[in-house]
Amino acid sequence: MKIKINENYRSVGKSYLFSEIASRVAKFTAAHPEARIIRLGIGDVTLPLTPAVTSAMSAAVAEMAEKSTFRGYAPEFGYDFLLEAIKRRYARFGVALGTSEIFVSDGAKSDVGNITELFGDNTVLIPDPVYPVYLDSNLMAGRRVEFLPATEENGFLPMPDGLRGEGEGYIIYICSPNNPTGAVYDREMLAAWVDFANRTGSLIIFDAAYEAYISDGCPHSIYEIEGARGCAVEICSLSKDAGFTGTRCSWTVVPAELTAGGMSLCEMWGRRQATKFNGVPYVVQRGAEAALSDRGREECLGLVKYYMENASKLASVLRERGVTFTGGVSSPYIWLKCTGTDSSWEFFDRLLTEANIVGTPGAGFGKCGEGYFRLTAFGSHEATDEAAARLRTFF
Amino acid sequence: MKIKINENYRSVGKSYLFSEIASRVAKFTAAHPEARIIRLGIGDVTLPLTPAVTSAMSAAVAEMAEKSTFRGYAPEFGYDFLLEAIKRRYARFGVALGTSEIFVSDGAKSDVGNITELFGDNTVLIPDPVYPVYLDSNLMAGRRVEFLPATEENGFLPMPDGLRGEGEGYIIYICSPNNPTGAVYDREMLAAWVDFANRTGSLIIFDAAYEAYISDGCPHSIYEIEGARGCAVEICSLSKDAGFTGTRCSWTVVPAELTAGGMSLCEMWGRRQATKFNGVPYVVQRGAEAALSDRGREECLGLVKYYMENASKLASVLRERGVTFTGGVSSPYIWLKCTGTDSSWEFFDRLLTEANIVGTPGAGFGKCGEGYFRLTAFGSHEATDEAAARLRTFF
Repeated sequence: MKIKINENYRSVGKSYLFSEIASRVAKFTAAHPEARIIRLGIGDVTLPLTPAVTSAMSAAVAEMAEKSTFRGYAPEFGYDFLLEAIKRRYARFGVALGTSEIFVSDGAKSDVGNITELFGDNTVLIPDPVYPVYLDSNLMAGRRVEFLPATEENGFLPMPDGLRGEGEGYIIYICSPNNPTGAVYDREMLAAWVDFANRTGSLIIFDAAYEAYISDGCPHSIYEIEGARGCAVEICSLSKDAGFTGTRCSWTVVPAELTAGGMSLCEMWGRRQATKFNGVPYVVQRGAEAALSDRGREECLGLVKYYMENASKLASVLRERGVTFTGGVSSPYIWLKCTGTDSSWEFFDRLLTEANIVGTPGAGFGKCGEGYFRLTAFGSHEATDEAAARLRTFF
Repeated sequence: MKIKINENYRSVGKSYLFSEIASRVAKFTAAHPEARIIRLGIGDVTLPLTPAVTSAMSAAVAEMAEKSTFRGYAPEFGYDFLLEAIKRRYARFGVALGTSEIFVSDGAKSDVGNITELFGDNTVLIPDPVYPVYLDSNLMAGRRVEFLPATEENGFLPMPDGLRGEGEGYIIYICSPNNPTGAVYDREMLAAWVDFANRTGSLIIFDAAYEAYISDGCPHSIYEIEGARGCAVEICSLSKDAGFTGTRCSWTVVPAELTAGGMSLCEMWGRRQATKFNGVPYVVQRGAEAALSDRGREECLGLVKYYMENASKLASVLRERGVTFTGGVSSPYIWLKCTGTDSSWEFFDRLLTEANIVGTPGAGFGKCGEGYFRLTAFGSHEATDEAAARLRTFF
C-alpha cells in the first residue's frame, strides 16, 4: 500500500515487555516440559473473584437473559450505580468528586494509553523505571520524553528538584505505589509535586492502581493533597485490588477545574471516550459495584492481606541471603538487585533455567531498571513457599 | 494549565449525535412525564442475550469464583477458543484467516476509532451519510477528509468513479450494510472498490457490523472479494447480531499481506493493542464463543428474524402513506425522506412531540443526510406495532 503510516511506530520497540517474557517462557517450557514453572513475572493475580462480586455478576447475567431486565448500550461513562460507588470510595479518603468527573473504563492500561491523545507537543516526564505503557504510548505520539531517575540514592522516589519548567508545563506521570519498585510517595512528597505542577502549569497523571496495598499512611489518592484538583488526573483500577485483571474495570478522574488552551480537559476526555469507546459490560459494572460495596471492600482487603503475606515470605528469604531489595511493604512488588554480574535479562534467563521461576527483568521498565529484577506477591501461598525454598538455594 | 492540547479537538463538534438525542429526549420527558416514548433512535437492540450465550457466561462467572479455574489477564488479542470460533465463522463464507490476523476487542467503535492511530497524514474518504465515528476520529487526528456522497441518484452506494488516487493512497471507509441508509454493496461493486484500492495503494476499512442482516446474496465479508487481503481491514461486531451492545465484543481482521512504508499493519495493530488495551473480559469471551457456536448462530438468526419483521411493519406503513424510503431489506435500518419542509432535526422534534417516537436525524450522519431520517427495527414487536399505528396518523 502507498498510504502513510504513523512514523512514530518505528521508534517503539518491537515487543511489549510481557509478550517477550511470555515468548521466552514458552520456548523454555517447550524444551523442558517437565519443569514446574512458578510465575512471579507479570503482575497477575491468582485468587478468584470474591463472593460479593461473582454473586452480583451472576445476577447480572440472569438479568441479561430476560427481556424485561436486559440492558443494551450502557451510559457512555458508566452506570450511575457504579459512579456513586466510586464516589463513596473516594469519600472514605476525604475526597469529594462530582459524578461528571468520573469516567468508567475497561482498564487503567487503556486510559493511561488513550489519554495521551488529548495533548499536544508537550514534554513528558516519566519515572525510570516504571510501567512501560507511559513511555510507549508517548513514543507512539512522537512526544519528547525526559526521564526521572528512580535510584537507590533517592529511595526510588524522584522529586522535581532541579526541573526548570520553562514557559510551558510538563505532562508528569506519577505511579504510587510504584510499579515496579514498590516505592510509595508520602504526603509531603506528593505535595511538593502538586506545588511544582501548579507553579509550572503542568499536568500530573497519577496512577493509583496499587492504592489498596498502602498500609503506611501514605495518600491513597492525589486528591488528598490540597491543590491537586487544579493539576492532576487520577487513574485507578480494580485489577490488583479486586482481582479484575481478567474482568476489566477501572476509572479515570478528570476534575472540572482542569483547563488548558481554553479547553476543559474533562470535556475533551468525555468527547474522546464517547467517540472511541462504548462503555464497560453491564455484567462487569455490577461486579465492580459489588467490589466497592462494604462487603466487597472487606473481601478485597482479604485478597490484599493474602498477597502481602507472600511478599513477607519472599522478603525474608532475600534478607536471609543478603540480597538488596526494596518494596513489599505497601506494594505487592519486590524490587531486588541482581546478584553477580548479570544484566537483568541474563538474570531472568538464569532464574528461569536454574529455579524455574519467572520474574520481570528490571530493564523492561527503563534504563535505571537495569541490574534490578521484579518479583510479585500475586502467587498462591503454596507456590510462594516453593518459590521461597528455590530462591534460598538459588542465591 | 500551560500544557498544549490536541488542537484538532477544537474542530470536533461539541456533542456526539446520540448524546444530543439523549439530551433532547430527557428534556422532553421531563416536561411530559406522561408521554409513552418509543425509541427507534439509537441502534440499540432490545431482545435479551440468547440461552447459549447466558449459559456460557454463567458458567464462566462460576469459573471465576474458583481458584482452580480463575482467569487473570487474557491473551492480549483474544483467547484461542474465541479466535478459532471466529475463524470457523469466516470459513462459512469461504474465507480462510490466520489466527494471528484476528484481534478481539471490546467493540467495533473502539477499533474504528483507535485504528486511525496507525496512519500518517493521509486523505480519508468517508461516505456521507455514515456512522459518525469515522469522521470524528479522523478530525481528532487532523486528517483531510473527502466525502463520498450517498444519494438517491447512486442508490446510496457511492463508487470510486472519478476519484484520482494521485501518487498516494487513500484511507477508505466502507460500511455495508450501511448505517444509516441500509444500502448494501453487491459483489461487483465491492470488487470495483477492491480493484480501485489495489490500483491506488489505498487501504479499505470495511465495517461489517451489520453483516448478519444480509439476506440478498451480497458479500458478508470483504474477503469474499479476490484481492481484498492486499488492501482491506475488516471490523465486525456481535452487537447487532447477538445483542452484545451492553456486553461488548468485536474483532478486527488485519491480513498479514498489508504493509505500508515497509511496516506490517498487522504488527502495528498488535503493538497498539498490546500497549493500550488489555483484552476482553473472560466471561464476555465465553459468551462470544457461544454466540458463534452452531446453537448460538441459530439463536442469533432468530433475533435477526424478529427485528426484520419489525422492519417490514415499518416499511409497509411508509409505503402505504407514500413516504419515500430505502433500507429495511438486508438491514435493520429504514432511511426515510423527511416530509414537508422540515430539516432533519426539526423532523426529529416534530416526531418526538407529535408521535412520541425517537428516531435519528439524518443530518447527524453527514451533510447528505440532511432531509432524511433513520428509524431502527430494534424495538419489540409490540412497540413497533404501536409505532406503526402512530406513524400512520403522523404522516
